[in-house]
Amino acid sequence: MSKFWSNTTRSITPYVPGEQPGAKKVIKLNTNENPYPPSEKVLSAMKAAVSDRLKLYPDPECTGIRAAASEVFGLPADHIFAGNGSDEILAFCFKAFFNPEEPILFADITYSFYEVYAGLFDIPYRKIPLTDSFDLQTEAYFEPNGGILIANPNAPTSKFTPLEVIREILERNPDKVVVIDEAYVDFGGESSVKLIPDYPNLLVIQTFSKSRSLAGLRLGLAMGQPDLIEGLNRIKNSFNSYTLDAVAQAGGEASLRDGEAFAENVGRVIRTREASVKRLKELGFEVLDSRANFVFASHTTVPASDIFHALRERDIIVRYFSKPRIDNYLRISIGTDEEMAALCGALEEILV
Amino acid sequence: MSKFWSNTTRSITPYVPGEQPGAKKVIKLNTNENPYPPSEKVLSAMKAAVSDRLKLYPDPECTGIRAAASEVFGLPADHIFAGNGSDEILAFCFKAFFNPEEPILFADITYSFYEVYAGLFDIPYRKIPLTDSFDLQTEAYFEPNGGILIANPNAPTSKFTPLEVIREILERNPDKVVVIDEAYVDFGGESSVKLIPDYPNLLVIQTFSKSRSLAGLRLGLAMGQPDLIEGLNRIKNSFNSYTLDAVAQAGGEASLRDGEAFAENVGRVIRTREASVKRLKELGFEVLDSRANFVFASHTTVPASDIFHALRERDIIVRYFSKPRIDNYLRISIGTDEEMAALCGALEEILV
Repeated sequence: MSKFWSNTTRSITPYVPGEQPGAKKVIKLNTNENPYPPSEKVLSAMKAAVSDRLKLYPDPECTGIRAAASEVFGLPADHIFAGNGSDEILAFCFKAFFNPEEPILFADITYSFYEVYAGLFDIPYRKIPLTDSFDLQTEAYFEPNGGILIANPNAPTSKFTPLEVIREILERNPDKVVVIDEAYVDFGGESSVKLIPDYPNLLVIQTFSKSRSLAGLRLGLAMGQPDLIEGLNRIKNSFNSYTLDAVAQAGGEASLRDGEAFAENVGRVIRTREASVKRLKELGFEVLDSRANFVFASHTTVPASDIFHALRERDIIVRYFSKPRIDNYLRISIGTDEEMAALCGALEEILV
Repeated sequence: MSKFWSNTTRSITPYVPGEQPGAKKVIKLNTNENPYPPSEKVLSAMKAAVSDRLKLYPDPECTGIRAAASEVFGLPADHIFAGNGSDEILAFCFKAFFNPEEPILFADITYSFYEVYAGLFDIPYRKIPLTDSFDLQTEAYFEPNGGILIANPNAPTSKFTPLEVIREILERNPDKVVVIDEAYVDFGGESSVKLIPDYPNLLVIQTFSKSRSLAGLRLGLAMGQPDLIEGLNRIKNSFNSYTLDAVAQAGGEASLRDGEAFAENVGRVIRTREASVKRLKELGFEVLDSRANFVFASHTTVPASDIFHALRERDIIVRYFSKPRIDNYLRISIGTDEEMAALCGALEEILV
């Protein structure tokens, strides 16, 4: 603890991202990255942007990405905000829409960064327990609140909340911003983007890190009615006018314009997931119904932490959370077919 | 004003960056960009980083950039923080080191983003007027305060504060963080980095946007003793674990390792500046002593706003601030010799 730290710096508990193993050759199924590379069109567009023009500031409005997103999502460009990963956009949301007077609501088991943001920006929160089957307790979100955050599909559970439920929550909270964090939606969920015209209180956030194979590039989108987008812009322009560099903007636009590669990539991950779920069940796992690029699984007889460590010894990294209610689960990212075969082979050895 | 906006969103006045004219062919001397492109080595390193590896998250520790900076600045890597432009690092400083109870101090005429951050993070501040010659009023920084921010060289004045003054301010504020914002230091100032071993309260911030011709890439560094760097990391890891993408990290490291191109580029800008200052004085301007890649000039007879508009009509963009004390000055970025010749030619026409 340093005497130079602010009260905030002293009190916060920073987020700890999943391990990045560096150069060591491992099977990395711990941070929900996509096992397939970004498309050639994305890489070409980025290389073309690596040019003398880097001496100039990038476009602070991210016009190219927003125009491409406008076509993909069928929304006007003034409904779209681009940021440095969905994490940055989530941070901006806390500052843009939530106040210190009223607790915001999110699930007890969800993306653990939400409470980190709350600590950073001094926003009170109430955690709403998921049901025993890890579903949202819908009625709890009808209580007075300062805003709502829902990851859909949820992480680390992988479960999807149907849009009827989202719609009900939106209707019961007409004066509060409801943020739907759709980091994983492309892997079989249904996006709330289609609800945007009906609900001025809805903000949908997506990322390029998972379904678009661009975790290394730091790109996210927020979509909502112009009021909300303007709120995000006011915060961004009070923080850092240019959070997306010129090369990332080029890559993001190219990714949005390459729908074919996107669909193929997502389809492959889904097929591998379904095959992996089947195999894991044969190995004695209970696996939650996943609409994400990972599965959340618990073994009927062997503790998750034992399996986690045994996999680690075999250079296979999955994610284990030593937290109440989920400390007997493993979160396993969907890799290539070969990686999943190696995982299942290792599990066969471990579980004998 | 939207009902969905937080108190902060309602109250802030976002920063307005200098105009980016888009495709139109203009002589752009308004945002202090470098007129010369980044070195070939930087562009090659970036192109090499545009690869399949973008599917993976980037290194959250920015190890490569920090190792290279360690060599350039002669500091251990734990004294170095890399961020998404110096703007992001400055924002983190407000959260990391300043509290709402005590006003921080900065000059009345300085980088106008400082008061924007203060508004965003609810940090009170007191503006210390520069003297009539636009120098720091040193003694005013000995008064009780919650922290100090000094741009050195200052913007938009271009003037440099000698390190003896910085040292005195550091010594009189042993319990407060003193941030020296050295965005322009490479163009003839002297860096406070050498004071870091002596002063645990000193944080020095630099950017790749000016002297390294990488405004389009969004890279900045903070340097200080490990306590301060850890404070910044705590804030960053509560905001966005990965603010620098893999390609930007590669470009930043290559730039730091290409000292030759850097020195040559900076030398060219300085030579053009000195020639431009001479010419501007011949044209009847008073020009402050610049250690930056821009000059701050006032004409003895013609109002700055008239000159600004007349240049604008000739597609030459400089920066004019309609603010007390400096509303008769123009801030002119140093372009190429050709651009400066065009500027001076236009001024000859305007000033007849």
